[in-house]
Amino acid sequence: MRHILVIGAGRSATNLIQYLAQHAQAQELEITVADLSQEAANKNINGMPKTRGIAFDVNDAAQRSSLISSHDLVISMLPAYMHLEVAKDCLAHGKHMVTASYISPDMLALDQEVRNKNLVFMNECGLDPGIDHMSAMKVIDSIREQGGEMLLFESFTGGLIAPESDTNLWHYKFTWNPRNVVLAGQGGAAEFIQEGTYKYIPYHRLFRRTEFLDIEGYGRFEAYANRNSLKYRSIYGLEDILTLYRGTIRHVGFSKAWNMFVQLGMTDDSYRIPNSEHLTYKEFVNLFLPYSPTDSVALKLRHNLKIDQDDLMWGKLEELDLFNTEKTIGIKNASPAMALQKILMDKWTLEPEDKDMIVMYHKFGYVLDGVKQQIDSHMVLIGEDQTNTAMAKTVGLPVAIAALKILNGVIKNPGVQLPITKEVYTPILKELEDYGVVFKEKQVPYMGYNPNNVAG
Amino acid sequence: MRHILVIGAGRSATNLIQYLAQHAQAQELEITVADLSQEAANKNINGMPKTRGIAFDVNDAAQRSSLISSHDLVISMLPAYMHLEVAKDCLAHGKHMVTASYISPDMLALDQEVRNKNLVFMNECGLDPGIDHMSAMKVIDSIREQGGEMLLFESFTGGLIAPESDTNLWHYKFTWNPRNVVLAGQGGAAEFIQEGTYKYIPYHRLFRRTEFLDIEGYGRFEAYANRNSLKYRSIYGLEDILTLYRGTIRHVGFSKAWNMFVQLGMTDDSYRIPNSEHLTYKEFVNLFLPYSPTDSVALKLRHNLKIDQDDLMWGKLEELDLFNTEKTIGIKNASPAMALQKILMDKWTLEPEDKDMIVMYHKFGYVLDGVKQQIDSHMVLIGEDQTNTAMAKTVGLPVAIAALKILNGVIKNPGVQLPITKEVYTPILKELEDYGVVFKEKQVPYMGYNPNNVAG
Repeated sequence: MRHILVIGAGRSATNLIQYLAQHAQAQELEITVADLSQEAANKNINGMPKTRGIAFDVNDAAQRSSLISSHDLVISMLPAYMHLEVAKDCLAHGKHMVTASYISPDMLALDQEVRNKNLVFMNECGLDPGIDHMSAMKVIDSIREQGGEMLLFESFTGGLIAPESDTNLWHYKFTWNPRNVVLAGQGGAAEFIQEGTYKYIPYHRLFRRTEFLDIEGYGRFEAYANRNSLKYRSIYGLEDILTLYRGTIRHVGFSKAWNMFVQLGMTDDSYRIPNSEHLTYKEFVNLFLPYSPTDSVALKLRHNLKIDQDDLMWGKLEELDLFNTEKTIGIKNASPAMALQKILMDKWTLEPEDKDMIVMYHKFGYVLDGVKQQIDSHMVLIGEDQTNTAMAKTVGLPVAIAALKILNGVIKNPGVQLPITKEVYTPILKELEDYGVVFKEKQVPYMGYNPNNVAG
Repeated sequence: MRHILVIGAGRSATNLIQYLAQHAQAQELEITVADLSQEAANKNINGMPKTRGIAFDVNDAAQRSSLISSHDLVISMLPAYMHLEVAKDCLAHGKHMVTASYISPDMLALDQEVRNKNLVFMNECGLDPGIDHMSAMKVIDSIREQGGEMLLFESFTGGLIAPESDTNLWHYKFTWNPRNVVLAGQGGAAEFIQEGTYKYIPYHRLFRRTEFLDIEGYGRFEAYANRNSLKYRSIYGLEDILTLYRGTIRHVGFSKAWNMFVQLGMTDDSYRIPNSEHLTYKEFVNLFLPYSPTDSVALKLRHNLKIDQDDLMWGKLEELDLFNTEKTIGIKNASPAMALQKILMDKWTLEPEDKDMIVMYHKFGYVLDGVKQQIDSHMVLIGEDQTNTAMAKTVGLPVAIAALKILNGVIKNPGVQLPITKEVYTPILKELEDYGVVFKEKQVPYMGYNPNNVAG
């Protein structure tokens, strides 16, 4: 019997725990789901075999150490900054560990000790980061094995609403943490490299420098640049690559409309608004517009953002009830971003039957035998409902699969790592296909940024 | 004989030391100018009576304590963050202190001890902060003495180039720290209040929300909002004021043109550019524009910023040599802001005979005997040359005058303070008039933001 401890029973844990429970009998597993709230822990294990839920405070060092010592592998679905203490206990007691979070410097610093104890600490093993790493490295490794040299890598991911549940003008609903959506792109310029030239996009221009993506069977999408594409040079061994760009996918028109909020300053999270609790939506909007004794907030906004009378952008704002004089923000001491999130959550929350959609798209440009070539690879997954979202599956399943592969010795190379080696991604990607996570690869004409001419 | 210690012999110390030396004989002063560089210290005292220059490292605690103990008053013209150790020694040895910097929380924390020792620690006693406080509080106090109630306070200051030295399309040259000019407005949204409504302008919109100011004899100027107007509510006792706005004055058209740099992301100081040293100016510009194998950097920029063929904005960019393919940034590991500063300093540095100009403008709206009224007050000062700038005078002279008034017991109320009390501002403003710092006040029709109608 192998004992798995899952810490944190949030949204992303649902499918993860389901997977483990379904394999419990055949794989001889016993699963403990630990959450600060006993209720949350129980909710996720309702009726599942070989699982129990317990209340657990990760800051209680004694309970944490004792709990970890009695399991064989720990899955931490806590917020990233809370992993370290868990990791140290795993190290002390000689237990494997899996997370879906980016490797922090503190986590990385444990690498040598983790190796010395022959443990696997697998991180970045969800969707993005996670499936993006695995599906990209699979193609990159295969190009290299044939003797190809990488010229270009572009990678896009989006958590979207499925066409059948797409009922608003923004073509968007929250399928994940709304706060992250409101703050997306903040904290510095987006950096990437195109044909050997560094490129930088400041936050206030990010949503106006999108590019289009056509996805077979789903039509046209758009993408805006992620902040830090350049770190993937070292992670994927692409130090000399000419073009490296990572982006976030949205339905066409989202970014241009979102840019209205950015321009007004409504996504700012750096200061708090006095009396925010009692501000009406309209008064909130007026904070960002010049004073006038006579002109309406609506006209001031139209003028400020240069929105024509017949522009659909206006409909998008009205759909959000942005000029409502009765609805109030209702949050004390809110930042603009917090107030905007409240307004959006009124309209963009998934209905019980709503289905979400994950889209991932990679472009691999390379030269092989002197010929420039390109492979495009993409994956689309539609969720089942509000709970069993494509997002929860694509985050939770790779974590669960990795955990079992580690216990079974399929993944055995020790160290603090992410899923970029063949030993790791091959079995995980293969099993993910059973859950509909299927990448379609196709050879296309080389479409790169014209590497013969880097004058631009 | 009274001994004054001046620490820091930078640009702002020139006129300060001149003033003290000129009064040394009659006022029985001996002046020590202490700078990290003996050369800098000597440069400023060249031939002046009763002054000596010494090399001095403010981080040398023993030297600092001994030097301060042998003087009666210390003027610190160091960067603001270096004042505290000096202040602590002044406190220990019972010496007065004067600075031109904003009061830090650490400095303010010394208030009770400073009072207990009956010392005056005068801060914010330069131009802005400094003369702005004094000239504003003079009018505010006088309005209050008549029984008036403040409705509106707007205050604008600019360090500009004088008309006779205005030789470029930007109508701007650096008359003070260029880095501060490049970074102006960054670090958060500008906050102010108009007719009782809070208003916020994000950095990327700051230079497009300017307002005009007409200054008698000098024509029309523009102003953009300073970051933190609201703190003046408590400082000036304007807690219930309906309109409070502080801004920075520029020649008309500067802000719209400066906004081009903001939009491109060239004022960003948060990251460093690889290989910045060898980038040509044109390559630097291209970092902020989309890649193209064929289109020119010039056309990409025109398109990106929507600059028409016959727009003067274009001439402003060309005047800076922004598309030069030979000039290089020449700074290793530069941020965009550092690179931009380099480009601007090529063109915007004062020539030896160039004269600068300080412009300050206040608007005071109030109600007196049920009638709304307004006083406008303004001051213009033209500098003499590259060294004896209006900026150096208006920063250095109030500090020097304050020092002497403290020594002479004219300013005697103890504590860590800024020049907002009548005891302080009356004698300083009066003496500043001898140096051309003259405020013209006039009664004008109430021009406020129409307080009868706060619907906007």
